[in-house]
Amino acid sequence: MVTQVFEEISPADFFYRNRDIAGFTNPSRAIFASIRELVENSLDAAELAGAPPTIYIRLTYGEGGLESGVYRLRVEDNGVGITSRHIPSAFGQVLFGSKYKLKQARGTFGLGGTMAVLYGQITTHKPALIVSSTGSTKVYKYRIMVDIQRNRPIILERKILINKDQWHGTIVKFSLEGDYFRAMPKILEYLKQTALVNPYANITFVDPKGRLYKFVRATTKMPPLPKETLPHPYGVDVETVKRLMQMTPHRNMRDFMIKHFHRISEKIAYKFLEFAAIPRGKNPKRLGPGEVVKLVQMMKRFEEFRSPSASCLSPLGEELLKAGILKELKPEFIAVCQRKPSTYAGHPFIIETAIAYGGSIPKKTDFVLYRFANRIPLLYDEASDVSFRVIKSMNWRRYKASPDMPIAVLVHICSTKIPYKTVGKEFIADRPEVKREILNGIREAARKLRRYLSKQEHVEKEKRRLSVFSKYLPKIAKFSTELAGKERQPDIQKLLEIVNQVGRKESRK
Amino acid sequence: MVTQVFEEISPADFFYRNRDIAGFTNPSRAIFASIRELVENSLDAAELAGAPPTIYIRLTYGEGGLESGVYRLRVEDNGVGITSRHIPSAFGQVLFGSKYKLKQARGTFGLGGTMAVLYGQITTHKPALIVSSTGSTKVYKYRIMVDIQRNRPIILERKILINKDQWHGTIVKFSLEGDYFRAMPKILEYLKQTALVNPYANITFVDPKGRLYKFVRATTKMPPLPKETLPHPYGVDVETVKRLMQMTPHRNMRDFMIKHFHRISEKIAYKFLEFAAIPRGKNPKRLGPGEVVKLVQMMKRFEEFRSPSASCLSPLGEELLKAGILKELKPEFIAVCQRKPSTYAGHPFIIETAIAYGGSIPKKTDFVLYRFANRIPLLYDEASDVSFRVIKSMNWRRYKASPDMPIAVLVHICSTKIPYKTVGKEFIADRPEVKREILNGIREAARKLRRYLSKQEHVEKEKRRLSVFSKYLPKIAKFSTELAGKERQPDIQKLLEIVNQVGRKESRK
Repeated sequence: MVTQVFEEISPADFFYRNRDIAGFTNPSRAIFASIRELVENSLDAAELAGAPPTIYIRLTYGEGGLESGVYRLRVEDNGVGITSRHIPSAFGQVLFGSKYKLKQARGTFGLGGTMAVLYGQITTHKPALIVSSTGSTKVYKYRIMVDIQRNRPIILERKILINKDQWHGTIVKFSLEGDYFRAMPKILEYLKQTALVNPYANITFVDPKGRLYKFVRATTKMPPLPKETLPHPYGVDVETVKRLMQMTPHRNMRDFMIKHFHRISEKIAYKFLEFAAIPRGKNPKRLGPGEVVKLVQMMKRFEEFRSPSASCLSPLGEELLKAGILKELKPEFIAVCQRKPSTYAGHPFIIETAIAYGGSIPKKTDFVLYRFANRIPLLYDEASDVSFRVIKSMNWRRYKASPDMPIAVLVHICSTKIPYKTVGKEFIADRPEVKREILNGIREAARKLRRYLSKQEHVEKEKRRLSVFSKYLPKIAKFSTELAGKERQPDIQKLLEIVNQVGRKESRK
Repeated sequence: MVTQVFEEISPADFFYRNRDIAGFTNPSRAIFASIRELVENSLDAAELAGAPPTIYIRLTYGEGGLESGVYRLRVEDNGVGITSRHIPSAFGQVLFGSKYKLKQARGTFGLGGTMAVLYGQITTHKPALIVSSTGSTKVYKYRIMVDIQRNRPIILERKILINKDQWHGTIVKFSLEGDYFRAMPKILEYLKQTALVNPYANITFVDPKGRLYKFVRATTKMPPLPKETLPHPYGVDVETVKRLMQMTPHRNMRDFMIKHFHRISEKIAYKFLEFAAIPRGKNPKRLGPGEVVKLVQMMKRFEEFRSPSASCLSPLGEELLKAGILKELKPEFIAVCQRKPSTYAGHPFIIETAIAYGGSIPKKTDFVLYRFANRIPLLYDEASDVSFRVIKSMNWRRYKASPDMPIAVLVHICSTKIPYKTVGKEFIADRPEVKREILNGIREAARKLRRYLSKQEHVEKEKRRLSVFSKYLPKIAKFSTELAGKERQPDIQKLLEIVNQVGRKESRK
């Protein structure tokens, strides 16, 4: 009889063997995924630095030219930079990252940058070059590879340079197999939408043919940084509570509840502990496993916890959203709406919607939908996304809109935990609370669109009416003159002036 | 200026935070995923033992009864069992498994059993009980939990019992939060389809209400075990070749190529090394990084490697496929087809198709599609699967079939690497080679269906014709007798007999 043979693999090895999961499915998708992961890291880093992001992306052919299918990718930013000792692991180790706090962030899995480097290594066997400084007197330059079987970085070279201009930022440069021309439309769409939803960012991209794409910032104004937040009782599970108990410095349940959870006052802590039949003075480390389970069950049932506050979130805001849309879509009309904060499963979220109409918005067989989450664009699997379903379910005729009109609908959700359905962050799952907010947000914007379209109709009607006047008034004047046997026509200029004035007034309403 | 804060998380922690990726999305889906992972482990283990699998699944309410939403799941099998020292890690550590060889296998990611235990732990904070023996004199019983932050098992208890009946197998028992009644249809469908594609397995399931579902084996005949195979040059990348070079005991490239790759003879090895301009006597460990990259590129370009052989694969075979379909679907007619082996990206695969018609097959608005890969059913995301697209693209009228007829189409792919699109193993990606084989396989079965349907039509026609005879022959006899002025009618019994004989002959064709 055969026995089973067991072995252990590292997480790097796991993602090496299953890179599809992280979006690195084929050469075309991989180039797109690499660029997006690095750009999102750069945006986060620049915001931490409090500086409007300036990002340069350069993609060139590798040594073999176009036929080799190998490219060199270089991404430079002006972010906070990475301290020297963390650089190798930040890019050379999977599951090592800065995105494990409970905070609104673009990246979620701590995979991104390393997956890109890993993919490059697998396909070209070349090392990656990382240059970074936090603005100190030194700039650090590393040449690294990933030891996949051990999930550890291999430092091939380390240099220290003098930081002349007090530069801070990060440069990542590596080779990878790719298919740029297949990926190009998606990459350009991604950069354009990123520029839209981050209108304070300068993004410059030079492609292998030397073509320059520049997305210039419309403003230097930035939304406040998202803040880290404490977990809400509705959003924790036994494992999380167990960890909090293991590391808490507090020795009684009253302090444990107040200090480790979101928005719990002494009054509410006492009420809850009574509800859960747990003494307020009990040491958290003395709770048995069964009691921890019961505590968490009670947390879900207790109805008097305050809703999660959204003060930790950082939505774009109506002004910036408008600026971004104007910059990238150049419509004739924009309606924006920011919903009040809401929650799902103990996580706060805010929905922002917008409708753009006319101008440079193209007419298609249906509305164009732009989807964003924590200020990154979502480009795949539109039909599976909750926003798509909401739009399909609405009766647009009551808003005077129809699919053949030049209309774009934008939905942005920001949250401490975006309900993504997949690791590739392609689309948002169908949570009822989220769906409801998106629906109401789009309706609000749609009502503003309707008012605009009604007014446009009215203005058109007026214009037509007035053009009839302008056309026939002179004739009427002439005929009347003849009929009356007069010689001189009345002065209709004044009348026409009044008519035109009325027309202009109507337009301005 | 804020600095970035970094931390490292373990793979168990990663999958704890992102359990959606592995299919543990919500309580209903989690119960389904747990059952499927354990059943698939059990089937693999029994086949290794060379024994027709006998699997018992028992799902009961936890302590709180129906309202608590907590269940106890127990799965027992008669497989090879797990050696004592591996038991804790096999269920208490993520990325520790037996599925990392290049072989046709049900599980692919080495996550399954541990994810189920992990999910149970997260939702109920209770340990898992594992009992196993390889048939030796001892049976080992472990009570374990997962240390998520360190990705290590925590052994709470270990017992050794005497193995009285030389039993071999594994029993897994743990608690989990779930929603059985929502999951029930999918679970039952899964078990039925698993019984179909593994007709030599006995599967017994008792649900929380005590209802018994028994899927009895139709045969004890089993297909030969899949064999481990060497990688094919078309299917390797630089990382794989690098690892082979690091661990190879062979000191020249000739032996390296012949011993580590699939179907390379000395003649082909020499031809290839010449093509790649690498001396046949060179020590593999002496190749520089650039040379390894070039070697892999040359492997992709060399056209004289022999196609991967499918002898390592273990398809079901037409007889077993028919037995399974008959057992579970009870149709009036079955057509099966096993395609010749083919390859994609250096991996061999075999497609088996079947069409079942009539009998207990229900009539729906469209054909029912059953999808299998390496003898496991795929139940989700049908519309994204390549088989679904193939069926939609076919012109069924030329096979005398239409969507309102009681027809089921089955597609089974077996391979050393199933081109899944996601970790949850929900559907197969759209690879051209695979798509072509599926199309041709379904066409072959459809042609057999057409012959059957034509014959049925013909038989129906004959029957109608003969029934007309049977109806009018007596009348004609009577009238003729009267017309001829005779008294006695001719004996038409013989004629009717002949007519009926002809009818029966036609039916049998």
